[in-house]
Amino acid sequence: MTFRPDESAPRRGTGRRAAIVGVGLIGGSIGKGLRRAGWYVTGADQDERMAARAVAVGAIDAIGTDRSADVTFVATPVGSVPAIALEALAAGAAAVTDVSGVKASVVEAVAHPRFVGGHPMAGSELDGIEGADPDLFAGAAWVLTPTPVTNLDAYAAVHAAVSDLGAEVVHVSPDRHDAIVAVVSHVPHLTAAALMAVAAGHAEDEQGPLLRLAAGGFRDMTRISAGQPGIWPDVCADNAGAIAAVLGELVAELTRIREAVLGQDRAGLLHTLERARATRLALPARGTRRPEDVVEVRVPVPNREGVLADVATLASELGINIESLETADATEYERGLIVMVVDAAAGHRLRDALAAKGYRPLLGPLG
Amino acid sequence: MTFRPDESAPRRGTGRRAAIVGVGLIGGSIGKGLRRAGWYVTGADQDERMAARAVAVGAIDAIGTDRSADVTFVATPVGSVPAIALEALAAGAAAVTDVSGVKASVVEAVAHPRFVGGHPMAGSELDGIEGADPDLFAGAAWVLTPTPVTNLDAYAAVHAAVSDLGAEVVHVSPDRHDAIVAVVSHVPHLTAAALMAVAAGHAEDEQGPLLRLAAGGFRDMTRISAGQPGIWPDVCADNAGAIAAVLGELVAELTRIREAVLGQDRAGLLHTLERARATRLALPARGTRRPEDVVEVRVPVPNREGVLADVATLASELGINIESLETADATEYERGLIVMVVDAAAGHRLRDALAAKGYRPLLGPLG
Repeated sequence: MTFRPDESAPRRGTGRRAAIVGVGLIGGSIGKGLRRAGWYVTGADQDERMAARAVAVGAIDAIGTDRSADVTFVATPVGSVPAIALEALAAGAAAVTDVSGVKASVVEAVAHPRFVGGHPMAGSELDGIEGADPDLFAGAAWVLTPTPVTNLDAYAAVHAAVSDLGAEVVHVSPDRHDAIVAVVSHVPHLTAAALMAVAAGHAEDEQGPLLRLAAGGFRDMTRISAGQPGIWPDVCADNAGAIAAVLGELVAELTRIREAVLGQDRAGLLHTLERARATRLALPARGTRRPEDVVEVRVPVPNREGVLADVATLASELGINIESLETADATEYERGLIVMVVDAAAGHRLRDALAAKGYRPLLGPLG
Repeated sequence: MTFRPDESAPRRGTGRRAAIVGVGLIGGSIGKGLRRAGWYVTGADQDERMAARAVAVGAIDAIGTDRSADVTFVATPVGSVPAIALEALAAGAAAVTDVSGVKASVVEAVAHPRFVGGHPMAGSELDGIEGADPDLFAGAAWVLTPTPVTNLDAYAAVHAAVSDLGAEVVHVSPDRHDAIVAVVSHVPHLTAAALMAVAAGHAEDEQGPLLRLAAGGFRDMTRISAGQPGIWPDVCADNAGAIAAVLGELVAELTRIREAVLGQDRAGLLHTLERARATRLALPARGTRRPEDVVEVRVPVPNREGVLADVATLASELGINIESLETADATEYERGLIVMVVDAAAGHRLRDALAAKGYRPLLGPLG
């Protein structure tokens, strides 16, 4: 379909217009980013003070509901998305998208050619409109979930807006999106909780030793269980089918491993661990960096004040960007260890400079 | 029993003597640490060049087998420990201990009152005698596994040596040790591999999107699966009973959670997640620091060169020790985030200083 926007509404540089329903952290960041890219942005929120703050902080040009916008973003909690999206579509909105973390149920509930499910894979430690940031989505993946009935103009309009926010579009079917987030987010979260439950069961009789011996790997694997549990019952309800399916796969895999342990199947265990290692090493380091483009520099360090500043400053002085860094909490050891990921071309230079300062750095592929 | 050492052997400051069989990283570090603490240390290794290197790097005073040493450390791979320990005990060794990662099978195989099973919870990225370090065990936990038949003098002698290395003794039964390491190390490792196997299964048809969307939590939970799998078939064989039992508990817990997801049991899920959170927050931050003694400072940052150096240098200039630090790879977000753990008393000072430099730090309890 071809959509003709209401030419009476004001326009900015690009002549494109966006409408945002729900101006919290995500909606506000979309507004700031699109305005910077030359879009004219109208916003609404059921909390009128939030809408006013959105104008004040520059997240939207005006409060209101622009039914002739090129793209309408529904940035409200998942439960309210279908009703708000259907209302906009009924009023003639050209392209409507959302930002919620599950897609099949939402896309099915809206079931409209001009609705394109969306899920930006970005967030912030900050919350609400005050945390809104035009760079929130820069370099992040943004999943769009078109279906066979999706209108191509609507898809193209949403794609253009997302691209203007600096995000990279990844398009998959709604079902596949839900399976993927179950695999990479929901089930890991529940598994961390399950590991803590098992540990708590063993700790109850004699808590001291267990907790004292919990080192790097265990800390890594349970870190996410320390987060606020508030949203998870909703997430589990919204994505129940995919989560249950993936949990079933995990239980089957753990049962298979348990049988290999009991059966002393060394070859089978080695194969499982080697396949896991290969898949893990193939994970992109961050964003679009390929594993062969970066190297890991591991530096055993004394646990003394200033050593992090010393190491990071050295890299900075050499003009080497540290793509990621973590300290020994993420190793099996209680001693200090700094693990840095840097550009492959810079690895040797950093290692040699560290060695010249008396460190004993190790250089290797990403692990 | 009371043991009289051979008074003809040379002695250092304390008059105490240790014998070490196997002078690799662990044996060599024990030698260096005990020599510094005034012990006279004799060492042997089936590789004669290793023994010679151990003398050259100052890990042992002399090559040999001191049967009248106060403590004999068997620092060889687990399979060879019982035979070497029994040989030393038959020759009259006063107190024999080992450093292997499983205890019930070893303690049962030796079955001698003067053998005390041991497991130092420390390691290093370095390997072999060249990585030996007298500080390797400083502040680390060192598990000893006495049994009802253990000779108290032998236990006291091993305890004294371990304390002289700067380690903190944790004593539990051999069975309990094996269950604990299954909970905090072996099963998490196998679970990481199982999660990767599940992910690999989903990635096979269309690898791009899945790997692109794998963010912080998933990375955290699978990081240890990127390690070399070489030792794990042995670990699984040595601790098969405890690992299978704990894997069974984990499978039961995951099955329970799966049923709660399918049954939309929000209250049950919330309870599970809240209990996991409470247990995770109760983990000591590092070593003996209690969670209430430290705070977490989270700093959203631009992904630009030098920002780590800037933040770490600021802390250093304020005289604040960064107990741990990790960058955004360990969050759900693709944007930069630095998470630091510092002394609770220093948290506000660091936050205010960061804010004064234009950062937007958040201060909170350990999570």
